[in-house]
Amino acid sequence: MLHDPVGAFVPGEAVTATGAPDGPLHGLTFAAKDLFAVAGHVTGAGNPDWRRTHEPAERTASAVRLLLDAGADLVGRTITDELAYSLLGVNAHHGTPTNPAAPDSVPGGSSSGSAAATAAGLVDVALGTDTSGSVRVPAGLCGIYGVRPTFGSVPSDGVVGLAPSFDTVGWFARESLPLWQVATVLLGPAPPDQPPHDHLLVADDVWAAADDEVVDALLPAMQRLAVRLPTSEVPQLATEGLDVWADQARVLVAREAWTVHREWLRSTNPTLSLDVKQRFDAAALVTDDEVTRARAVRDQAAKRLDDLIGPTTVLALPTAPEIAPLLDSTDAQFAEFRRRTLALTCIAGLAGLPQVTIPVAALAEYPVGLSLIGAPGTDHQLLALAATVTRPAD
Amino acid sequence: MLHDPVGAFVPGEAVTATGAPDGPLHGLTFAAKDLFAVAGHVTGAGNPDWRRTHEPAERTASAVRLLLDAGADLVGRTITDELAYSLLGVNAHHGTPTNPAAPDSVPGGSSSGSAAATAAGLVDVALGTDTSGSVRVPAGLCGIYGVRPTFGSVPSDGVVGLAPSFDTVGWFARESLPLWQVATVLLGPAPPDQPPHDHLLVADDVWAAADDEVVDALLPAMQRLAVRLPTSEVPQLATEGLDVWADQARVLVAREAWTVHREWLRSTNPTLSLDVKQRFDAAALVTDDEVTRARAVRDQAAKRLDDLIGPTTVLALPTAPEIAPLLDSTDAQFAEFRRRTLALTCIAGLAGLPQVTIPVAALAEYPVGLSLIGAPGTDHQLLALAATVTRPAD
Repeated sequence: MLHDPVGAFVPGEAVTATGAPDGPLHGLTFAAKDLFAVAGHVTGAGNPDWRRTHEPAERTASAVRLLLDAGADLVGRTITDELAYSLLGVNAHHGTPTNPAAPDSVPGGSSSGSAAATAAGLVDVALGTDTSGSVRVPAGLCGIYGVRPTFGSVPSDGVVGLAPSFDTVGWFARESLPLWQVATVLLGPAPPDQPPHDHLLVADDVWAAADDEVVDALLPAMQRLAVRLPTSEVPQLATEGLDVWADQARVLVAREAWTVHREWLRSTNPTLSLDVKQRFDAAALVTDDEVTRARAVRDQAAKRLDDLIGPTTVLALPTAPEIAPLLDSTDAQFAEFRRRTLALTCIAGLAGLPQVTIPVAALAEYPVGLSLIGAPGTDHQLLALAATVTRPAD
Repeated sequence: MLHDPVGAFVPGEAVTATGAPDGPLHGLTFAAKDLFAVAGHVTGAGNPDWRRTHEPAERTASAVRLLLDAGADLVGRTITDELAYSLLGVNAHHGTPTNPAAPDSVPGGSSSGSAAATAAGLVDVALGTDTSGSVRVPAGLCGIYGVRPTFGSVPSDGVVGLAPSFDTVGWFARESLPLWQVATVLLGPAPPDQPPHDHLLVADDVWAAADDEVVDALLPAMQRLAVRLPTSEVPQLATEGLDVWADQARVLVAREAWTVHREWLRSTNPTLSLDVKQRFDAAALVTDDEVTRARAVRDQAAKRLDDLIGPTTVLALPTAPEIAPLLDSTDAQFAEFRRRTLALTCIAGLAGLPQVTIPVAALAEYPVGLSLIGAPGTDHQLLALAATVTRPAD
């Protein structure tokens, strides 16, 4: 039986697969979020009604297959927020995985179980998905590395989608080497000719979106980066305002999520947790005019980011604006966490940029992650840079 | 001017070199121990009389050149114990680098400055040499990764030697990814067909050689390894006794050190710290009979290790038997630390085996390193395994 002291794995199923007898990941163990198809098993998507209304998968998701073919062993599937439509990591059906670094607080989601299993040392690496922050947020809150790769760079077949123009397959690790090893398998080897990031961009509006204590906790890591890279500052990354960017990203994700899931929602009338249900109910009401306006803002945001973030520029930002919310937070507090967090996570999402979150600091015992965003396709360089930023001995 | 809050770099010199404009290490910074030749500069070997009696190097040491050609930038040369003939990290001429993790204690040596600079975050990686533990010991005491590679696997030309049949070029890193990146440059890429380590060997005599508190501190990491790998136990690794192995290694190192340095010692009559001087004085008195007996024990030890440590077996052991000695320890305490430490470090040295030390634990604030030893040539697999053993969040 799987040893699972943090409740990270989907209860009542045993989804395992042995990796190829050799390959660059041989010796590593991994878990996959309960959105990844494994042949012969029903994908649960965090919701019992989903599981009840779906057949066992015929094919294993390509991302899982790539890791198996590279020699890693799949040890289980991990709990996700329902249909991946939350950033909290709370799941009333399967339980809320314990945040190993902060057991009184949520682990973050929606890839909650993958983050918790990795942080607790139950696996070396884990697959998640990241639409609006679902890898970056739980990685940051649990104090581990998490990668949202360049949009479209990792195959997403066999993965339950949420918002196809935002969805990515990402991954978690405690250590920079397995993080990198997975990158070389999912993305391919590092391009031989790409220059490393040599310029650090700091945007005042982005840092103003986080709690002062979070900014203070990240200061030493930022100083280590600034010693290494020439730094420039812009007062405003989001010309239209970060809240506007986040709002419009939310509109687009909602419309896409409704398009993806409305048939199933209507035909099944599933039991959903209140916040996820409310989100789908609101998604149904998004108008075409709202979508048109949101697309225009997305285009402006993508152009702005393309102008500012060249192939050797890295943007540094807090992964989340605050530490992990307490488990007994009010609904209003959770909603506020979501709203504020999306203002930071929407940046990479709107423009399809790669982002890595690095465990660099803590407030008391609560992890605080620093994120780096690069230009599309600079994922390997971003990971190499990330491994130089960790906290030295003190 | 180089920022050096821990006194890790050789005072009064500025030895820098810019790496190639691209390559797999582009973006990384490194330091090299004051035994590595850099063209145009005099190598100091930790002793002013050595510096005074030597000319500037004509060629840069191959290990330094390999890192430069791979794109890493050399930022300085680091303090070494005199002629690398100590494990403490104390140097009366150049100062004792601060142990960033334990400022009241020695950093360990002889690659003291490389360990301190890496631990303090002044460089990403650093080169050292390891004859009897001079990379492994300071890495363990400073709480970072350190590698002693398979004997003969990294070119040592341009490096001041101590005992040629034991000398290796090793390296330090805070993070597993740069540790690995350097391996792929100094050792070449990972062999595609080598199986990972799949069997853990625990030897009772090796663990009995360490303080109970050190053993206890390493227990969680050992349990993480044991979950991953089938484990077997042998009561005695050193059939002749670990102290006998260490004594004979000391005899052989002494004879080789005397052979390497006697001309210079006689012609220069250098000012050496008392313990290094006493060591050379004793080395001069080693008899041929003692060497013959020591070689026989070395052959027995190498055979024993070859029998026990197959290509997929890994031996786990404490890197050092105790935490870093306090700076104000007595000479007797320092001597006892050296004696006890050599009983653990001689194992890899006698048989030319690769060893990596991993920062997995601490006693109060004092780092405790866990070491893994593998069969010759399994360095890459050892580093990949090492990156899975680090402490999870708790």
